[in-house]
Formats: sequence, structure tokens, C-alpha cells
Amino acid sequence: MLEQNVERFLLKKIFKDEIVDCDAVVKGWIKSIRKSKKFSFMMINDGSCQGDLQIIIDATIENYEEVSSLLIGSSVAITGTLVPSGGRGQKVEMQAKSVEIIGRSDETYPLQKKATSLEFLREQAHLRVRTNTFGAVFRIRHELAQATHRFFSNQGFYYLNSPIITSVDGEGAGEMFRVSGLDAKNPPLNDAGEVDFTKDYFGKETSLCVTGQLEGECFASGLGAIYTFGPTFRAENSNTPRHLSEFWMIEPEVAFADLDDVAKLAGDYIQYMISEVLKNCEDEMNFLVNRHGGNLDESHLEMLKLVRDTPFTKITYTEAIDILNASGESFEFPTTWGNELQTEHERFLAEKHFKGPVIVTDYPADCKAFYMKQNPDGKTVRAMDVLVPGVGEIIGGSQREEDYDKIVAKMDKDDMDKEGYWWYLDLRKYGSVPHAGFGLGFERAIMYITGMSNIRDVIPFPRNPGNCDF
Amino acid sequence: MLEQNVERFLLKKIFKDEIVDCDAVVKGWIKSIRKSKKFSFMMINDGSCQGDLQIIIDATIENYEEVSSLLIGSSVAITGTLVPSGGRGQKVEMQAKSVEIIGRSDETYPLQKKATSLEFLREQAHLRVRTNTFGAVFRIRHELAQATHRFFSNQGFYYLNSPIITSVDGEGAGEMFRVSGLDAKNPPLNDAGEVDFTKDYFGKETSLCVTGQLEGECFASGLGAIYTFGPTFRAENSNTPRHLSEFWMIEPEVAFADLDDVAKLAGDYIQYMISEVLKNCEDEMNFLVNRHGGNLDESHLEMLKLVRDTPFTKITYTEAIDILNASGESFEFPTTWGNELQTEHERFLAEKHFKGPVIVTDYPADCKAFYMKQNPDGKTVRAMDVLVPGVGEIIGGSQREEDYDKIVAKMDKDDMDKEGYWWYLDLRKYGSVPHAGFGLGFERAIMYITGMSNIRDVIPFPRNPGNCDF
Repeated sequence: MLEQNVERFLLKKIFKDEIVDCDAVVKGWIKSIRKSKKFSFMMINDGSCQGDLQIIIDATIENYEEVSSLLIGSSVAITGTLVPSGGRGQKVEMQAKSVEIIGRSDETYPLQKKATSLEFLREQAHLRVRTNTFGAVFRIRHELAQATHRFFSNQGFYYLNSPIITSVDGEGAGEMFRVSGLDAKNPPLNDAGEVDFTKDYFGKETSLCVTGQLEGECFASGLGAIYTFGPTFRAENSNTPRHLSEFWMIEPEVAFADLDDVAKLAGDYIQYMISEVLKNCEDEMNFLVNRHGGNLDESHLEMLKLVRDTPFTKITYTEAIDILNASGESFEFPTTWGNELQTEHERFLAEKHFKGPVIVTDYPADCKAFYMKQNPDGKTVRAMDVLVPGVGEIIGGSQREEDYDKIVAKMDKDDMDKEGYWWYLDLRKYGSVPHAGFGLGFERAIMYITGMSNIRDVIPFPRNPGNCDF
Repeated sequence: MLEQNVERFLLKKIFKDEIVDCDAVVKGWIKSIRKSKKFSFMMINDGSCQGDLQIIIDATIENYEEVSSLLIGSSVAITGTLVPSGGRGQKVEMQAKSVEIIGRSDETYPLQKKATSLEFLREQAHLRVRTNTFGAVFRIRHELAQATHRFFSNQGFYYLNSPIITSVDGEGAGEMFRVSGLDAKNPPLNDAGEVDFTKDYFGKETSLCVTGQLEGECFASGLGAIYTFGPTFRAENSNTPRHLSEFWMIEPEVAFADLDDVAKLAGDYIQYMISEVLKNCEDEMNFLVNRHGGNLDESHLEMLKLVRDTPFTKITYTEAIDILNASGESFEFPTTWGNELQTEHERFLAEKHFKGPVIVTDYPADCKAFYMKQNPDGKTVRAMDVLVPGVGEIIGGSQREEDYDKIVAKMDKDDMDKEGYWWYLDLRKYGSVPHAGFGLGFERAIMYITGMSNIRDVIPFPRNPGNCDF
């Protein structure tokens, strides 16, 4: 064994720097193995990048019989010489001097060479990251997370960890998961015969957050501009390819800003993400658009480049309704003014009409949350949604109502219990400023950019009704 | 008003670039105001940096009476000329041409000029970020988060969002918060008369995660090296200055690595965080070490520089016990071999004996979790804790048991229900590799670096027993 004196290289470094004529150790998992009498070809991957390294193992090595009989998924450490590769694919391969068997795999290993469906792999969420498809998706997810932090931090936004367990409903309407330490079977009851949450861990009823926005507004009113990047939750019974019970959201909030400011921010942000992925994840994107069994091709990359380089279209809700009504399409849900835009409407606008992302602003007040700034028309609010082809809504945002009297009147109209919001209302009492923000569903952005069509395939361990394995 | 034609600058940019002889708009909140007949001095801050900008307002401006009577906390937009400042403090000040009043404050504003205690400010968590102290803490928190992503990403670690809602107990021992959508008062019961969690949202009993490690091991076994950075939860009834019910943790996990590898990684990581804060948050750190009512001085910065530049000491648990027993100190808890190290022991080691961070390794197996790699001595496991002065444990980590038979035997010995861990055990069946990782309590790291002595003062909205406001 030469290992002691030879450096281990990650595959990413070997391919990037095209390291050849150099002894090295590589470690990884066997992706495929082809045996012959004189030598074997082994493809290994260590997760650092999309590409596999081809290892040529001469039959003269000591444990050749054992090594050449290893099964897919086994882990190995190989000492050898990196040499230029004559074949297609990578420019470097390794001539093995010795192979150490670290951990064996067997015939029951679920990730066999034969094509495995995305549905099947969802049941193997602990292993699927070892496949080419999911390796690509999760390296891209990483890049998008890094790009998010760079984008906001470089512009002076401060990262806020908003709370997860909360006693308020940030949307004034959400279906929330209860968080409790009370005995599940025999909870303590109060004099009125109701569950006595004053005896619970936090002394009140608590839930998982649906947004970090309200706390984001507090921090924007101190640090000027903030963004959250954390998990949020919905206890809705939605079993669709676009919904998760637990998902990650990025929520910037900017003081001294209006809706136009954050609409521009939203466009810049999406364009930056696309730009960084195209630049830093070329191998991953190329794999995905050519993926066996996938529904993409190179045109997906062309589409992303166009979106990266084209200013986003911005229309009002009222204009959107006019477009839908003039379209001649037949929709399942009504398109009269005052109705919510449904996914079918959103996708029509983004996919068929504008053929690209579109920002829709100024929605009817009744469709939207209590905290949105009321327009002078008395009917609409300064809200926006960003719609993209293939996914629909990817961003929802608004300018916030900064006028104390107006927001209180709206909360009263919506029959909200103002007591828990005293601190939120304080922002409107002490140095209130125009401010605005939005929330981007991280998984929906990943779907859009990777072209994956089910949201459960872009989050490591998806949670949805009936599914909390792993 | 000149505003239309004049660019708005953030204070951070003005001070950094020392912009003078230039017309500008600044926006922010009034930190103090001093009025005289001929002119007033107003200090404003916009949250972008630690320093306030002094505004000189001549009595000749149109709304002088109104402006000069504004109270602390009011928000304003000022158009004026940036000029060199003769006084102490910042090198730039502004000569106002016009002042627009955006949002007023009044006498009930909780953050008055008189010194306010940290305890009082905890009850004003929505406003406290506007103070110098908390502005500094939360900008440093931001920098530490960015440094974390840079540190790991630059070394090829992939960011993993591990799940928050979980059906397994990652520590095999934690007190966890239940997450449920069942009726709290009348939950459905099964035939045995117990709560029927098969009718709950996920079809089983679910809780908030105590760690992302187990899922981290899955992803490290695919991507090679990962780190989590997300919220974790403890339902313990701990009301101490070092415990939170909800806190953020960073958990790297590395395949093909042993305990020594991650002990080095832990030291490098802490040193990098210190280095980046000293470099990028000079004003914030200088404010904190000279903070009125604080318990720090410049020696805190010297201490941090020493830690940044000195390799971490590493001792075994057995050596630590010997040191404690030879110390002559009287401890409340026993120091015989086999007992847990308590906070008093940890702080003695870090503060009095080593006077700096120390890594303690190879703890008795009975003190530690089921997944840790068993040493050949049959008594200890390849665990480590990193202890720092003022805080105690800041990192806990281990090499993981990668041998299927050994980990199963340990789970049986601990009487654990293996059923929910089938996927975790799969990692030991298919290409198992030596791997190791650790968890850093983000808030504890912030406490250590900022010198803040209560963990509730370094997280935006703390959650602890009885406290879930905001």
C-alpha cells in the first residue's frame, strides 16, 4: 500500500485541474464495474462532482479476484497514477496500483444499474443522493443556497434567523401544525373544559411558523434590510407535485422601500441565481437536460439564459384578468375580477401568454393578507406574485401597510385577535417607515431551474401528508 | 426638496468610502437630538453599520420647529451635503438642506436615551435591534453565518437542509416537542385506548428534530462532505443563560474521515469565524468590548486573537479526569471516571487550567449516544467535545460507528426500537465508510465571540420555557 505517502484528491479537483502523471489516492463508491481476465474497468464517484473517475485495474494486483467481484455501491480506496484518458468523457483516468475494500455492498442494494424511477427513489431518500440525478439536483441546491447568501449579503442585507415555533399566525389565515409538550391523551383542561395551554411548555398555544415576515419587518426596522432563509410549514392537506408540508423560504424585507423596489429585487435575485448555476454547475445542468427518462433538452438552458438576460414583465392583476378573458382559453376556475388567480391562470400567463416570468401586482384586497398596503382605490393592495413557466407562483410579496390606523382597521375587519400582534403594531407607532418584502419558495425556484417536475425531488427528505420517513 | 435628483446612500458606504463634498439623501431613525436656537444636532442610524451620522440642521430650514422637536425613534429622510467632520467620532457629517419626517415616535417609545437593561430589552425583542448593543450583536451574527457558509463551501462541503419534522429521535435520548394536527382536546384513540397517531397528519407520531446528523450521514455517504445549518429543538425544562428551546446548529459530516480529521476541522472552523469577525466587524467588536455596563474590555480582543492563532489543545476524557482530580478544586459533581463532565468541570478546564479552548476526546461509552464509534478498549467511544472559556461546551462530535453488527448490538443494549432507523442502518449495509462529524451550537459560538453572557441576547427572538412571544 502506498497510501501513507500519497495525497488523497477529490474527483472535483482532479477533473478541474486536469491532474495527470501524478500518484494519488482516490476514495469513493463504485458506480459500475466491468471485469475481464486481464483487467477491469471500475467507475467510482466520491460525491464531490458530477463526473465519475475511471479506474483501470490490472489483473496483476494482489487482491484482483476479490476487487473485480465487488458489487455496485461498495466503497473503495485506490492508490494509483492519474493519466490522460484516451476515451470519451473525462480527460483523466487512473491506473490502479492497489485497491483497498472499505465497505461492501450486495445484491439487495436498491440502486442497481438498471433505470430506477424517481417515484421508487423517493422511498430510498437516504440513498438517492448517490445517483447521478439526485447528486446533480442537490449540488445545484447547494449552489442556489450559496448564491442566495452572496446576493443578499453583497447588497448589505443582514441574515435573520426568524423563529420557528410561534404563537402568532403570520399570514392571518394559515393552517398550522401545533407544537406541544402536553400529554397527548389526557391534556390538562381549564375551568371552561378546554385544553389548558397555559400549562403547556411555553404557557400558551404554539405552532410552527408559516412565515418569518413579521419578525423580518421588526429587524428591517432596525438593520435596514434583512433576509430570512429558513424552514416554514403548512398543515394543508395538499398532495400535489408543487406542495410540501415543510419547505424552505427566503424572505427579504427592506425598510424605506416600496413595491417597485422589491419587484426589481425579485427579478435581480432570480436572474442572479440562474447566472450562478449556469456558471458553476455546468456539468450538473448538462446531465439534467440530457437525463435518461427526463422531459428536458438543451432548449431548457436556452430558456434560462433568456430569462437571465431579459427584464421581467410587470402587469397588474386587472391587466392579467383582461388577458385571461381575452385569451379564448377555457379555464376551470372563474376569471372575473375579484377572484384569486389559480395555478391554471398563472401557468397560462407565464407559459402561453408571456412565455417567461411575469410579475403580477395590485391584487384585490380580499384575496390577500391583512398586512398589505392598501391602494388609494380602496379595492386593491400593493401585492405582487412572480409567476414562472412550469411552476406557477414562485414568489409572493407586497409593500406593507405602515399606517397604524389603517392596519388596525383591516385587522378588525378580518376579525383578527390583535392582542398577540402588539409588537407588530408597535412598528407602526414608533418611527414607521414604508417597507416591502417578498418570500421565495426555495424548492419552487430549484424546480424551475433544474426542470425537475415534482417538488419532492428537490428537497432532501420531503414531508407531505402521510410521509415523514427518514 | 432635492430628493428626486440626489442619490440615497447607506451610512455604511458613506463612512467606508469617506464620501464628502457631495449632495446625498440619507434615511434612518433618530438616535438622539440636541436643539438650540440657531441649529440642531441630530444623530441618525439606518442599521447598515454601527456608526451614527451626525446631521447639522440650520434653523433656517422650512420646518425647523417641527423637525427639531422630533423624538428619539422617529424616522426621517434628509437631503443635504456630506462634509468632513471636525469633531471626534466619524470623519463625515451632513449639513441638512431639508428634512422629511417619515414616521413619528412619542414619549412612550421604550428605547429612551437612558440606559436600558438587557433584561428589559428582552421584553422588547421587536425593537431591541435598534439599540447599539443589539445592532452590533446581530450584525456579528450575520457575519458568522456568512463565514460559516464560506468556510464549508470553499472546502467542498455541500449544504444540506435536513428535515425539521421527524419521526425518529436522532440522539436516542432527547426530550422532543410533539408536532400534531390532531384535535388537542379529543384526539382519536385506537383499540388499545391510546392516541391513534396513524390518524395524524403524517400517519405517525412526529416531533421537532434534535439534530440533523442522521440525515447528514446519509448525504455525506453520497456527496462526500456536507454541513447542515438549521434550527434544532430541545423540550427540556432548562431555564439557564446557556440553553434555548430553539437554537441553530451547524453540523458538518465527512465521509472517509476519522475523529482526528473533524477535530482539526472544528479548530479551523472556530479560528476562521474569529478571524472573519475581527476583520469584518471591527466597529461592532469595539463597541461591545467598551459597552457601558458590559463586563468586557480590550483584553477580550487579545484573547480572541490568541485563540485564532494557537492550535487547539487536545486531551482525552481520562486525562481530563486526572487534571480535575489533581486540581485541588472542590466541585459540586463527582469527578470519578465514568461520570459526565459537568459545566463546572468544562469551565474549569477551559478557563482555569488551559485558559483557552480545549478538545476532550474518547468519553466513556455510557455517557454518549448510540451512534458513536466504539474504541477497542470496550469502554470508551470516539467522541469529542470542544470547550471554551465563558461558555463551556460549544461543539460535540464523534466518529460514527460504521460497523453494522456493532451499532445494532449497541441499539439493542440501549433498548432502542430499531424499526424507525432502517434507513440509517442501511448506510452500514451498502458501501459503509469511516465517517465523522460534529455539531456547533451557533448561539454558543456567538456568545463566546461577542462576550455576551446570556444566550437569549444573541438570537433574534429567543424561545425558552414560558417564553414564546413575538
